Amino acid sequence: MNIGLDMMGGDYAPLEAVKGVSQFLSEQNNPANLTLVGDQHKIKDLVHQLKLPADHINIIHAEQVIDMHESPTKALKEKQRSSISIGFHLLASGKTDAFISAGNTGAMLVGALFSIKAIEGVLRPTISSIIPKENGKTGLILDVGLNADCKAEQLNQFAVMGSVYVQQILGIENPRVALLNVGEEEGKGNILAQATYPLLKENKHINFIGNIEGRDVLLDIADVIVCEGFTGNVILKLAESLYGISERQNLEHAYFERFNFENYGGTPVLGVAKPVIIGHGISHAKAFKNMIILAQKMIDKDVMSKMKKELES
Amino acid sequence: MNIGLDMMGGDYAPLEAVKGVSQFLSEQNNPANLTLVGDQHKIKDLVHQLKLPADHINIIHAEQVIDMHESPTKALKEKQRSSISIGFHLLASGKTDAFISAGNTGAMLVGALFSIKAIEGVLRPTISSIIPKENGKTGLILDVGLNADCKAEQLNQFAVMGSVYVQQILGIENPRVALLNVGEEEGKGNILAQATYPLLKENKHINFIGNIEGRDVLLDIADVIVCEGFTGNVILKLAESLYGISERQNLEHAYFERFNFENYGGTPVLGVAKPVIIGHGISHAKAFKNMIILAQKMIDKDVMSKMKKELES
Repeated sequence: MNIGLDMMGGDYAPLEAVKGVSQFLSEQNNPANLTLVGDQHKIKDLVHQLKLPADHINIIHAEQVIDMHESPTKALKEKQRSSISIGFHLLASGKTDAFISAGNTGAMLVGALFSIKAIEGVLRPTISSIIPKENGKTGLILDVGLNADCKAEQLNQFAVMGSVYVQQILGIENPRVALLNVGEEEGKGNILAQATYPLLKENKHINFIGNIEGRDVLLDIADVIVCEGFTGNVILKLAESLYGISERQNLEHAYFERFNFENYGGTPVLGVAKPVIIGHGISHAKAFKNMIILAQKMIDKDVMSKMKKELES
Repeated sequence: MNIGLDMMGGDYAPLEAVKGVSQFLSEQNNPANLTLVGDQHKIKDLVHQLKLPADHINIIHAEQVIDMHESPTKALKEKQRSSISIGFHLLASGKTDAFISAGNTGAMLVGALFSIKAIEGVLRPTISSIIPKENGKTGLILDVGLNADCKAEQLNQFAVMGSVYVQQILGIENPRVALLNVGEEEGKGNILAQATYPLLKENKHINFIGNIEGRDVLLDIADVIVCEGFTGNVILKLAESLYGISERQNLEHAYFERFNFENYGGTPVLGVAKPVIIGHGISHAKAFKNMIILAQKMIDKDVMSKMKKELES
C-alpha cells in the first residue's frame, strides 16, 4: 500500500505535512508506505531535521505549486509539474493507491473528477463531512458542496455511498439514512426532496428512516444525512464556525471541541475509483496524520469496491 | 390600533396567551387594543383570575380550535368557527390591524396567503427569522420555509422586504444584504444563486454586499441574509437546536441563550398587506407578549406600506 501526499498544500506546508507524516509513522505499528510529493529540498531538510525513519517514505520532486486562489482548471492544465498534478498522475498510473492534499480544493476536486475514473455507474462523485452528534456519536452528511444542484437519482446514490462509508470507516452497522428536509412527513419539501423520498424508500441497499429536519442534524437520529451540495455546504460551514465561536467565547466544552474539523483530517471524495482526500487549508500536523490514517483505512477496507458492489447490484 | 390574538393556539393555550396579554398591558405605557379570539368562558375566567384591566381588551368567541396536526387547508375550510378562521376574518374585514397565533403553522400560512391580500407586486410572501450574531447584534434570514423552491426574482424581492423590515423593526440603517452561497466570488453557487446575484447587484433599493457562506451566518457580516426556504428552514431549525443543546449540556452562556427563539416572539409573514405573526407551538407568556409588541411596532412604523413603496418604485 502506497499513499501519495501533497507536501506543498495548505497554509503551513511543508512543515506541518512533514510533522503529520512523522506522527503517523511513529504511532502506527504497520504503516503504509508514503510518497511525499513536493519541493524535494525543503522536504528532505525537514525529514532530516525531524529524524523521520527512511524506510516508509519516498520523495517525488515537484517544482511547481498550485496556490490556494488559482483557477483550478487553468492551474492543473498549466502547472503539470505541480505537486497536485504529479500526485494525481501517480494515483492514475497506479504508483500510489490514494492521494491526499490540503491544497487548492478546487484543483483537488477537478483532479479527482478528471484524473481518476468514477466508479462504474456513479452519476456524480460526492464529498461528505463528519457530523458530531450531541451524544458523542458521529454521523455523515453528504453532499457538502461538490454538487450544488442535484437530481434525485444522484441523492439516491449518495445515500448508498454514504451508507457504505459509514459502515466501513465509522463502523456503524446498518446505518440509518435520512433525507434532510423541511418537515418530517413524506411529501414535504422542495421539488428535489419530494422526488428523492420515494427513491430512498424503495432503495433496498440502505436503511432509510425518512425525513429529518435541521433540528435533528446534531442529534443521534440518522447516521447518514443526504442533501444537495448547496444546503450541505452551508450546514458544514455553519457547523465549523461553531468551533471558532466556542473558542472566542471561551466555552471550553467537549462537545464544541468536536466541531474542530481538524479532528477528522479531511474530506474524502466518494464515487471515484481510488481514495482522494481533501484537507482544510489550515491543516496542522494532526489533520495530516488523520488524513493518512483515513486513506489507509479506506484502502484496507476496500471501501471503493464495496460501494461499486452496492451500486450495481 | 387593534391587534387580534388567537388565544387557543400553542401548547399552553389559553393560559400562557392570557399571561402574555397581562404582561403586555402592564408593561406598555400606551398599549394597543387587543381582540382576544377563542373560548370566551375560558378566556374570561383567566382574565378575571389574572385581574387584567378591561379597557384594552375585547373578547370574540370562537367555538372551534384548529389542532396542531390538522391539515391546514381542510381545517380552515371545515372549521370556520375556529379561532384562526375568525381571527383572519376580523383582519380581512378591517376590524383588527394585525393577527397573531401560536397555533397550527400551516393554517396560519394558508390563512395569511389566502385571507389577506399580498402587497401589490409581491410575487410570493415570505417568512423570516432573527439570527443572533456572535457580537451581540441581530440579523435577519429569509425565506425560512414558506417557499421551498424559489425563483431569482422572488429572492430579489425577499432582499427588499428583509431590508425594510430590518430598518424599521431592528433599527439598522442601510442594512447590509448578502446572498447565502457556497463561495464568496460572483458566479459561485447553484443555478438559483447564480441567477440571483446579478439581480441583487443591480437592485438600487438594497445595500448588496455580495455572497456570504455558512461560516458567516452567525458573524456580524450581513444584516439581511437571503436564501430559498429550504436552506433557510434547515439553518433556522439547526440554530434553534443549539439552544436546547446548550441547555442540556449546561453551557449557560449568554450567546447560546440568544438562540432561545422565545426571546423574539414569532415570525412575521412579510409581503402580505397586514401584519400576521406566527408563534412557536411551545410559546409561553413572554413569546406572546413579544409577538404583540412586534405587531404593534409593525403597525406603528407602517412597515407594510414602506415595503410596498420600495417594491414598486
